[in-house]
Amino acid sequence: MATVDRWLLPDGIEEVLPPEAALIETARRRVLDLFQCWGYEFVVTPHIEYLDSLLTGAAQDLDLRTFKVTDPLSGRLMGFRADITPQVARMDAHSLRREGPSRLCYAGSVLHAKPRALTTSRSPIQLGAELYGDASPASDVEVISLMLDTLALAEVPDVHMDLGHVGIYRGLASAAGLSGEAEQCLFDALQRKAVDEVAELTATLSPTLAGMLRSLVDLCGGREVLDLAQACLVEAPDDVHLALDELIAIADSLSLRYPELPLYFDLGELRGYHYHTGVVFAAFVPGLGHSIAQGGRYDDIGADFGRARPATGFSTDLKSLVTLGNMRLGEPLSGIWAPDSHDLPLWHAIRRLRQEGQRVVQALPGQADGAAREASCDRQLLLREGRWQVVALNS
Amino acid sequence: MATVDRWLLPDGIEEVLPPEAALIETARRRVLDLFQCWGYEFVVTPHIEYLDSLLTGAAQDLDLRTFKVTDPLSGRLMGFRADITPQVARMDAHSLRREGPSRLCYAGSVLHAKPRALTTSRSPIQLGAELYGDASPASDVEVISLMLDTLALAEVPDVHMDLGHVGIYRGLASAAGLSGEAEQCLFDALQRKAVDEVAELTATLSPTLAGMLRSLVDLCGGREVLDLAQACLVEAPDDVHLALDELIAIADSLSLRYPELPLYFDLGELRGYHYHTGVVFAAFVPGLGHSIAQGGRYDDIGADFGRARPATGFSTDLKSLVTLGNMRLGEPLSGIWAPDSHDLPLWHAIRRLRQEGQRVVQALPGQADGAAREASCDRQLLLREGRWQVVALNS
Repeated sequence: MATVDRWLLPDGIEEVLPPEAALIETARRRVLDLFQCWGYEFVVTPHIEYLDSLLTGAAQDLDLRTFKVTDPLSGRLMGFRADITPQVARMDAHSLRREGPSRLCYAGSVLHAKPRALTTSRSPIQLGAELYGDASPASDVEVISLMLDTLALAEVPDVHMDLGHVGIYRGLASAAGLSGEAEQCLFDALQRKAVDEVAELTATLSPTLAGMLRSLVDLCGGREVLDLAQACLVEAPDDVHLALDELIAIADSLSLRYPELPLYFDLGELRGYHYHTGVVFAAFVPGLGHSIAQGGRYDDIGADFGRARPATGFSTDLKSLVTLGNMRLGEPLSGIWAPDSHDLPLWHAIRRLRQEGQRVVQALPGQADGAAREASCDRQLLLREGRWQVVALNS
Repeated sequence: MATVDRWLLPDGIEEVLPPEAALIETARRRVLDLFQCWGYEFVVTPHIEYLDSLLTGAAQDLDLRTFKVTDPLSGRLMGFRADITPQVARMDAHSLRREGPSRLCYAGSVLHAKPRALTTSRSPIQLGAELYGDASPASDVEVISLMLDTLALAEVPDVHMDLGHVGIYRGLASAAGLSGEAEQCLFDALQRKAVDEVAELTATLSPTLAGMLRSLVDLCGGREVLDLAQACLVEAPDDVHLALDELIAIADSLSLRYPELPLYFDLGELRGYHYHTGVVFAAFVPGLGHSIAQGGRYDDIGADFGRARPATGFSTDLKSLVTLGNMRLGEPLSGIWAPDSHDLPLWHAIRRLRQEGQRVVQALPGQADGAAREASCDRQLLLREGRWQVVALNS
């Protein structure tokens, strides 16, 4: 957005002026219409909630990113939503309680007390879609496809995608008897691809398990990584193989559907690991230091609301879609200029035109002739032969 | 909303489930399209700002209704917007700085730390339109007309309207030399129509001024109030007469445009007086204890941002419009059910249909036959003669 005034607004908090705001609104509608075409139902989650509900199942970094206030009515701590996914999971688990699969989508502002990176917005407009109640890779393929179609709709060029699966690391760590702090340390070291640290942290494990955990650092790259992983992890427990098979199934489906899409795999880097339980994915564009859209499977998140359902979904930021995409407004703004007059037949003429969907801007007292053009009008209402008629602006 | 779960969500904070959420979204679009048809440009204001900017020109009650947090980046106090009007005024005065009149509109959630009344939402979705740069009653008539057309669009029945003008009380109080606390006390007494208090507070004033101030308590009712006011206030200073003339001009225009609309006048009750400077108005419906839409003129609000422009506007709450209005979704939801299959030609068929705007829901592994109806589908994709074809659901 070129419309940020850093003198008056806090860092990372933006206002959006015309005409960018109209583009934001248009993009919002088109994406929500796309979600609807895929069978996703729109929901509206609260901007503020009790912190307990808001951070359920969520990662610690979400806690640190959440603005907190005390509710003057209840005295309880509340937070402003920094992520909408856990709220929608709560809706599915608690408010909807449907038997079959649920497809839900949303669009709304979130607030981050701290930005993810120095240049990131603290007030993105989060758009996303979630699919509950089905544990099969078919659901993951559906939400990833919807994410890719969302980026295509916004005309975001040069998208490439990273895929991973937290079940691979989790299965190995669990087989190694790692938990709590030890598992977290190893996880952090893997994220940073800190080979020496990974070696040190796995030094006391059995050579086979240690070797497999260490191999995760290098298991990143193109499709060949998946074959390599099958070879490296041949002695891994069954759940690791299941995870790898899921990842391969998803990758193969995506390659069939989107043969042009560059797909990368990273079995060590596990975005959003904290609440994810299966496949994780993120879409990137050149020159942007973070993902433009991301998601994954998070099967356990509803448990705290009394109902753990399989869940998978993705989210993106509407402002980034508009900034990085090439979406344009459908038609240039046009309109009919009406004179400054209290004439009742004029009012009726204006009203009729507006009811037909025409944009009619009425002059205010003393406005100069040029104002019609400034108001993006190309026609005008003129009284001719006793009747208000729409004519070209120059006549 | 029937979908509030008071056990989990804070009082006055709602989530909106399907299908109500779809209606909220539809209403939002229709109202914003209406604003666009009147020449109002869409803007997006931040959810959070430095408190200094947020409360500029605003009333003390807005301060008390605003949630506050410290910005971890700057250490400065921030507030979550409890009203959008002052933000849009800041945009007009500071960010846009246009020469001619500006018409701006917005739609977004606001948060109230304390509800206005026990049963009021603390998270309304505020919709509004503001007109800057013109001081004439023509602007007031325009925004009031737009407010009435918004209520009509939402099919809100039995609307009636209250009109007042803070210039009348202000002019009298200023002529009486009242300011600060004394003026505030008298104002409060007038709001409560506390005749004895008003008498007491005006006891030391000249009999003429005291009489006129006291008369404000009774100057409420139908159109006859305006004639009565002209008689009662005949000895008032010029600015009071100007204010009364403005109010009469606005009332007469509205009566012409909306001959069926019940119009009431109250020269003593001055909603939102704190930042308003001219006409104030509010629309009511039977059974609702507060106004459903309201607004007024607030000419001075931009001054703190370096540019005091004439300003008038109105706002309403999207959720109330949907709850109290009879707006319905355009068409019942329909769709095409696709089988659970990885078949690539099926994917291409689904994609083509979605690109045409069709709603296509794909079955997930193991979903029963009844799922298609549950997903609001009336047709299905079937492979016939080697081609995926759309047929009725029962065939």
